[in-house]
Amino acid sequence: MATKHILIVPGDGIGQEVTAVGKKVLDKIAARFGHTFTYDEALVGHAAIEATGNPLPDETLTKMRASDAILFGAVGHPKYDNDPSAKVRPEQGLLKMRKELGLYANLRPIKLFDELLDASSIKPEILKGADILFFRELTGDIYFGDKGRKNNGDTAFDIAEYSRFEVERIARKAFEAARTRRKKLCSVDKANVIETSRLWREVIQKIAPEYPDVEVEHQFVDATAMLLIKDPRRFDVVVTANLFGDILTDEASQIAGSMGMLASASVGDGTGVYEPIHGSAHDITGKGVANPLASILSAALLLDISFGMKAESEAVITAVDQVLKAGFRTRDIANAQTPADMIKGTDAIGEEVLQRI
Amino acid sequence: MATKHILIVPGDGIGQEVTAVGKKVLDKIAARFGHTFTYDEALVGHAAIEATGNPLPDETLTKMRASDAILFGAVGHPKYDNDPSAKVRPEQGLLKMRKELGLYANLRPIKLFDELLDASSIKPEILKGADILFFRELTGDIYFGDKGRKNNGDTAFDIAEYSRFEVERIARKAFEAARTRRKKLCSVDKANVIETSRLWREVIQKIAPEYPDVEVEHQFVDATAMLLIKDPRRFDVVVTANLFGDILTDEASQIAGSMGMLASASVGDGTGVYEPIHGSAHDITGKGVANPLASILSAALLLDISFGMKAESEAVITAVDQVLKAGFRTRDIANAQTPADMIKGTDAIGEEVLQRI
Ligand SMILES: CC(C)[C@H](C(=O)O)[C@@H](O)C(=O)O
Ligand SMILES: CC(C)[C@H](C(=O)O)[C@@H](O)C(=O)O
Repeated sequence: MATKHILIVPGDGIGQEVTAVGKKVLDKIAARFGHTFTYDEALVGHAAIEATGNPLPDETLTKMRASDAILFGAVGHPKYDNDPSAKVRPEQGLLKMRKELGLYANLRPIKLFDELLDASSIKPEILKGADILFFRELTGDIYFGDKGRKNNGDTAFDIAEYSRFEVERIARKAFEAARTRRKKLCSVDKANVIETSRLWREVIQKIAPEYPDVEVEHQFVDATAMLLIKDPRRFDVVVTANLFGDILTDEASQIAGSMGMLASASVGDGTGVYEPIHGSAHDITGKGVANPLASILSAALLLDISFGMKAESEAVITAVDQVLKAGFRTRDIANAQTPADMIKGTDAIGEEVLQRI
Repeated sequence: MATKHILIVPGDGIGQEVTAVGKKVLDKIAARFGHTFTYDEALVGHAAIEATGNPLPDETLTKMRASDAILFGAVGHPKYDNDPSAKVRPEQGLLKMRKELGLYANLRPIKLFDELLDASSIKPEILKGADILFFRELTGDIYFGDKGRKNNGDTAFDIAEYSRFEVERIARKAFEAARTRRKKLCSVDKANVIETSRLWREVIQKIAPEYPDVEVEHQFVDATAMLLIKDPRRFDVVVTANLFGDILTDEASQIAGSMGMLASASVGDGTGVYEPIHGSAHDITGKGVANPLASILSAALLLDISFGMKAESEAVITAVDQVLKAGFRTRDIANAQTPADMIKGTDAIGEEVLQRI
């Protein structure tokens, strides 16, 4: 029986819709297990720019620091995407949050629910049993180095940077996770070309002997992009830099059938942030069709990682599994065989999950 | 009836084996169509380091400049991959060649031979009809910017850089190619985070009105990594920066069934270079099992692009198609249904192609 304070940060687009469902799930867990969860809400991204001019207002940051965990939606808006010269952008809110809270480790578990074996574009016999845990470094690399223009704006540059310390702390988290799983760690880099990758590989090689029970392999990012599709089962834990992790985990979403199923946890020095890996998806915003399961599964990660509530987290995952077993689908995970009346909207599938907790 | 001088640069690992077959195909084409092809050979990569200490000896570069086209193998050696502090590396030879010859445009056609529909890990119904032409920028980005160490080697950095001029020249090539195809261009960047991508998007937006018949879309690299697998048919021509192109084209090799099937052309200011997109594959080197079809298809691209020999190029592609239709496979494109006696080694499948030209 714990008392916890959770900050809800819906952000933009479908972030609003799916996070509302994630919150209901947390509420139901509190009721069912006798915990007291209190909530507050805060703005980020485009929503925050509209209200305050700032993609991460100080008030939001203060509330984040004061909470025990954060359930996050998504940020982004097409308006800025099509205006490369925009000075203020929704994504700056997300990146600043990661940096300010010291969220250097982004965990993205890629696991296929058996019922969704057919929802993927990859063959079921290639997918069956695939279970990958990504550790994406989240506060370094080309995301946070200096960037700008030279030659009257005619040349653009971005600096990628990593220190040993930054590589080592995420690597240790990945090694430790591998210990509790199938004891395989794949470190992904581009050490044949870039210097930050060579430092990355050096650090992994240096600390590997401290984890003699973990089998380590090094792969280039291009080969990994291929192998993830060719043979996803060969991977257990994967650790990689910020930019490579961004690309590879979106790609790997196809292993789980749909991006709409994938949750992530960003942890490190401060309050943990839990969010779907999908974006703000303005094309389907407000239509009530967004898949809330990634937000629900983000709530499950929150319970497990930030609150240490294993049984509660399992209860959520089991409920999602049962909903899928019962045949309910959102549009993105439905296929030609799904009966029309089993295709549910955001709130309706959320209700099905709630009933099973 | 033309006279052409071709430089063969096998490089490392299976580069030797597959390029030998590619050369035989060029020879057969010359005989069949009454051309005179003369050849020379030169060292690059690990092979060149062993012989001269230099991954791209001056002699090689001189020969490259003096030839009408270059058939290239692969470079790389595990020895360097596992030694992040090595100062001389095989890949430096490849990168220096690209820079010295001004090969700023890397074309990677991704097209599935119908017979290989089942060789991929992606479902046939998702793949059927997929046909993508990648334009990867090849002489800029984080590959060629300053890189190094700071803080006594404890911090590594890499600088990514692009000028308007560099983006524009590759973009124009891609727009022009789109005109001759399905008239769709997808430009891939990460403009929501990095400055070089914002410049990239600006340039594409600026020149797009000059190609009103081409429909342009902008995608983020993470979303593209996902969409390539989810729905490969939505893409026609894709243009992107060096690093993103490296990752996405390796991933896209799964659309073509195997990396062993994919050819590439690197063109720009100087002699064109034609090479498989696969690497040196030291694990299978010397075993006679490497798939030479990518080198053969590279020879076809060479005939088409550098020599303007369309019929000759088509003759090669048709021969490859017939070999596949006849049921012959190398190990990498065989499946459980392939009869054992139809699985051929490098030279044997090469012979089958030669017989059909
Ligand atoms: C929105 C964007 C800045 C972000 C990123 O690149 O990190 C997103 O793609 C993600 O993966 O969380
Ligand atoms: C070998 C390596 C340097 C090279 C690259 O990254 O360009 C290779 O992966 C390629 O795609 O040609």
